[in-house]
Amino acid sequence: MRYVSIIGASGYTGVELVRLVTGHPDFSLRSLVAGQNAGKAYSEIYPAYRYLPLPEMIDMKAFDPSESDLAFCALPHGTSQQIIATLAGRCKIVDLSADFRLDNPAHYEQWYGLEHAAPELQKHAVYGLTEFYRDAIRSADLVACTGCNVAAGLYPLLPLVDRKLIATDRIIVDIKTGVSGAGRSARIAMLHAEISEGCQAYNIESHRHLAEFDQELGKAVGHDVRVTFTPHLVPQNRGILATIYVEGDTGHIHKALEERYLAEPFVTVLPMGQHASTRDVRGTNQVLIGVVPDRIPGRTKLVSVLDNLVKGASGQAVQNANLMLGCDEKSGLDRSALIP
Amino acid sequence: MRYVSIIGASGYTGVELVRLVTGHPDFSLRSLVAGQNAGKAYSEIYPAYRYLPLPEMIDMKAFDPSESDLAFCALPHGTSQQIIATLAGRCKIVDLSADFRLDNPAHYEQWYGLEHAAPELQKHAVYGLTEFYRDAIRSADLVACTGCNVAAGLYPLLPLVDRKLIATDRIIVDIKTGVSGAGRSARIAMLHAEISEGCQAYNIESHRHLAEFDQELGKAVGHDVRVTFTPHLVPQNRGILATIYVEGDTGHIHKALEERYLAEPFVTVLPMGQHASTRDVRGTNQVLIGVVPDRIPGRTKLVSVLDNLVKGASGQAVQNANLMLGCDEKSGLDRSALIP
Amino acid sequence: MRYVSIIGASGYTGVELVRLVTGHPDFSLRSLVAGQNAGKAYSEIYPAYRYLPLPEMIDMKAFDPSESDLAFCALPHGTSQQIIATLAGRCKIVDLSADFRLDNPAHYEQWYGLEHAAPELQKHAVYGLTEFYRDAIRSADLVACTGCNVAAGLYPLLPLVDRKLIATDRIIVDIKTGVSGAGRSARIAMLHAEISEGCQAYNIESHRHLAEFDQELGKAVGHDVRVTFTPHLVPQNRGILATIYVEGDTGHIHKALEERYLAEPFVTVLPMGQHASTRDVRGTNQVLIGVVPDRIPGRTKLVSVLDNLVKGASGQAVQNANLMLGCDEKSGLDRSALIP
Amino acid sequence: MRYVSIIGASGYTGVELVRLVTGHPDFSLRSLVAGQNAGKAYSEIYPAYRYLPLPEMIDMKAFDPSESDLAFCALPHGTSQQIIATLAGRCKIVDLSADFRLDNPAHYEQWYGLEHAAPELQKHAVYGLTEFYRDAIRSADLVACTGCNVAAGLYPLLPLVDRKLIATDRIIVDIKTGVSGAGRSARIAMLHAEISEGCQAYNIESHRHLAEFDQELGKAVGHDVRVTFTPHLVPQNRGILATIYVEGDTGHIHKALEERYLAEPFVTVLPMGQHASTRDVRGTNQVLIGVVPDRIPGRTKLVSVLDNLVKGASGQAVQNANLMLGCDEKSGLDRSALIP
Repeated sequence: MRYVSIIGASGYTGVELVRLVTGHPDFSLRSLVAGQNAGKAYSEIYPAYRYLPLPEMIDMKAFDPSESDLAFCALPHGTSQQIIATLAGRCKIVDLSADFRLDNPAHYEQWYGLEHAAPELQKHAVYGLTEFYRDAIRSADLVACTGCNVAAGLYPLLPLVDRKLIATDRIIVDIKTGVSGAGRSARIAMLHAEISEGCQAYNIESHRHLAEFDQELGKAVGHDVRVTFTPHLVPQNRGILATIYVEGDTGHIHKALEERYLAEPFVTVLPMGQHASTRDVRGTNQVLIGVVPDRIPGRTKLVSVLDNLVKGASGQAVQNANLMLGCDEKSGLDRSALIP
Repeated sequence: MRYVSIIGASGYTGVELVRLVTGHPDFSLRSLVAGQNAGKAYSEIYPAYRYLPLPEMIDMKAFDPSESDLAFCALPHGTSQQIIATLAGRCKIVDLSADFRLDNPAHYEQWYGLEHAAPELQKHAVYGLTEFYRDAIRSADLVACTGCNVAAGLYPLLPLVDRKLIATDRIIVDIKTGVSGAGRSARIAMLHAEISEGCQAYNIESHRHLAEFDQELGKAVGHDVRVTFTPHLVPQNRGILATIYVEGDTGHIHKALEERYLAEPFVTVLPMGQHASTRDVRGTNQVLIGVVPDRIPGRTKLVSVLDNLVKGASGQAVQNANLMLGCDEKSGLDRSALIP
Repeated sequence: MRYVSIIGASGYTGVELVRLVTGHPDFSLRSLVAGQNAGKAYSEIYPAYRYLPLPEMIDMKAFDPSESDLAFCALPHGTSQQIIATLAGRCKIVDLSADFRLDNPAHYEQWYGLEHAAPELQKHAVYGLTEFYRDAIRSADLVACTGCNVAAGLYPLLPLVDRKLIATDRIIVDIKTGVSGAGRSARIAMLHAEISEGCQAYNIESHRHLAEFDQELGKAVGHDVRVTFTPHLVPQNRGILATIYVEGDTGHIHKALEERYLAEPFVTVLPMGQHASTRDVRGTNQVLIGVVPDRIPGRTKLVSVLDNLVKGASGQAVQNANLMLGCDEKSGLDRSALIP
Repeated sequence: MRYVSIIGASGYTGVELVRLVTGHPDFSLRSLVAGQNAGKAYSEIYPAYRYLPLPEMIDMKAFDPSESDLAFCALPHGTSQQIIATLAGRCKIVDLSADFRLDNPAHYEQWYGLEHAAPELQKHAVYGLTEFYRDAIRSADLVACTGCNVAAGLYPLLPLVDRKLIATDRIIVDIKTGVSGAGRSARIAMLHAEISEGCQAYNIESHRHLAEFDQELGKAVGHDVRVTFTPHLVPQNRGILATIYVEGDTGHIHKALEERYLAEPFVTVLPMGQHASTRDVRGTNQVLIGVVPDRIPGRTKLVSVLDNLVKGASGQAVQNANLMLGCDEKSGLDRSALIP
């Protein structure tokens, strides 16, 4: 049994970690760490979890990393790096924030507008896109999970740019995402009365997630790649659908993706022409990729769906933790979707 | 390992049975039986289940009950009794329809407007409100699951009428229910564009579920009891909230319910004055009961919540099947709620 | 043309007033007063209103009441009384808050927990339930609009208690309400991710709206009347449905309500046995009342629906303003529902 | 006063026509024609319209076109052409279906898979994109309204291809649309329980709306233009958001669109960099166009929003009818959005 703790337990990725960790056959939940909610029972925040024998939430000062084999850090970026700086070397860490995703501290400063508090750690952190960094993750002490929108884009794109099957200067990524990605904080823009019956783009000129796209696509290709990227908010809680427009032969693209992911338990390439709904992956750690020819020869549409709180965050984090702790990579990640 | 089959697999209680059975440690899914969908892969109806190694759907003629220890029957009432008439004695059966809930064939005919096709079976069927018929269910060959709205009412009420703690001629049950209870059939009234942004009562003068209330409350009290009952449709997929107005001492009521359900794994009485949201039980087999004093002395409000597709249907069915097949009653029913 | 202003223009009742006033043939919008949003264009808060030639929002200090015939005050209770204390006598006022609804300052203090800042004004304010205080409203300088939940209850109940057609000690009011009633303020509990797919009761032991019920029912009957009252939050933006359980002859009740409201343009009694959805009144100033016999003789269900932002707040306010300013009571209130 | 009738009154574009026509100062509603609902009161289908003094629905045989100046035809394609063939020459007609949008009968047959029943009429019909065919519409007897998704694409694109400001072989149109566009027919795929909490693409390889894009862009450019087009269904009732990726100078694009639409009452170009939500146009006849530079120089994002039932269908129809009947083009189309 591995002992794991969750830092930042009261947010949406935190509660999703609680769901996954408490249902995990190899993990035992040690501590729940929260900021202003420290001292409360977890069920005060999430009454649905009153049945689980959960520890009371504690604050960071009371947290002893030596009692855990691994800590999940589900804090906002900026805060996360400061907490992790104090934990490094005392337990393994899976970070769900953006703080350790970028190799280059200068890029971090450029995109996030603040100097990194732990640049040394940043260099050693491993990028958490499991299917592409599996070996490095196994031996890592600090893994930085991929952002949810980026994951929805990279799964279909990376094998294609790697094999030079698509024009790297012609990639357009159009994202539709639910509201839980915005987190559990009090904001007027996220009220039910502001979200329902409405769809809109956001961060349309530039989005911090682009830093990750640039980094990972660039590594795969060997030179700078820039994608056009537009995220949209749709009135649902969970789920990301990425529609990606590329130039390249549809048949070759489909074959390459099928081959690349054939052995992957959490990435599935659908039969040619099929594509999925975000409902199909709600609550699961799956990515589904559809490949569809455009009516214009030489153009292909890629449609990927994932649950932003699972494969886009907490499920990805558990998958990485499984590797870091020597468990079966799939352990605790076999839940089916809740339909309807 | 027990072999179980699902008849009527393509509806919402059917897919919920697939979710629960495929995650059940003691059950193996033998057959999926469907009507017009026979011959299709299950994932054609529910693409979210394409990962599961499910059998192809077959039609009733191809179903061999001798290969299953138990069959779940998730068909509409009327149809269910005809199918079950052909299966009786060949495997154990848990029926989710209303066809075998009423002891008295005359009552069935009165409420459902048709002569019962299997009156003998109807007499032998055991009512599936597990916590009240546990012993009979253990040895039953045919169990008729309680209706979802009725379950939400009976859990708080039965222990109180049984102990004469409330006035039996003063019970008002006001139900708020999601749309999945209406099933997966093509009806204009259930379109998204007809349901969202709206709340309404339905079957307001009288509702077939009252036959069950009458029967079970009458049995508990020893004489006829009639409740006032109003179901309302609210724009959500899952969940029932019952607000029940009774006359009786709030303290005694709370104590009696706490005692009655103390040892029950799936019924929880909240601390005095607390009550829950349907979100708190979404996807779980739990019933949560709140007891709150009214400002008028001598009156008490009972607030119960359950997931109509789990404790109100498929979870209840699995709980009963566990008893009928000699498994741990809780087996396969430990899923946490999906939040948000 | 009458000049009207809106104080508290950036909340949901404020924007609904903007919609109604800008579409009103007899009103001209003079000033939009806001607190922290002062200095902004209205379309910064509500981009949907960018087409309208609206004045820039100003703060209270810049507001000159002598330029308006009437001011709508759409502020939170507590704040409202302080603002109105400074305006009284300088223009007519329609207040949408709870501050001037209770005749008795002691009752205000008891229910709202604070001493009233303008007790003299409170005594002179007229209660804004138009159909019952029409004459007093015509000559009033300050009208306090009825609370939305209370209006849904009083329309069906007042004519019945007045005519002694129902038992006044047996009234139960079960309310289902959308989220816009909670206002446009940043609260975690009102996030889309916290509201969708969930239904719950709130303020279940006692609710401030009861003070209004007590006052108005008591006035109608001539002695104290206490109702049992439970509000529930349902996942929709607009709309209140009140299910009211009473004891009394259904036929007499239906006839009495039909007669009472026959000449009323905004209150409709449906044919016996029919009842409506909140969708049927979305965006309109209508109240629809259904009268349905219970299966238990001598009991009757009343089902009323209204749009909490229109007849429950801003539409009611315009209806009252029409009377106070000598316009046709129906002026500007003829919009049809938006379906779907 | 002009007399107008609505054929196909019971669908969603039909009820939206009822809303707009009954609020129109210059129109008087003559007949409501329905198929299987003939003989019913309109309020049996749409109880929200019980206040309006509407004629009973009649069937087509009882409809006398000589009593109307103009008929709106809100029927499904295929049926529409057959009905219109019998009406032509007897009153003016605005058709909301796809039947008369394509100039070329061969294109109709190719895209819709059936021979056109009224090819002569098809040739004379005027395309209903008001801002581009205003003069022809004024004198037309038959106008074919633009499809909702196409309108969302053509408003931003037509002025740009016309002025050669963008590369015509590099246009990608990504559509997010609500469910009311699918109409009011009983389909499992459109149930609330199938739509909420889900986002998906549909008709992804090719969509009949492309025929209109091809025709109108081709006419504007003078040679064949093919766009890449992907529609997506999002869980809301009304609203279309089109994100359009083009290559061209953002400044020139913004300026050209601003100039083109400066005098148009129903098309607004937002300040550079701004873009809107579908909520901003809900219930209105407005199109809002945002122009945003991509981070990749030389690329521009266009974001347009409209209400599919208003500017995308019934509002556009009324706008065209205003021109055909000699009324002010804006008459009856001044409703503000319902917020929230």
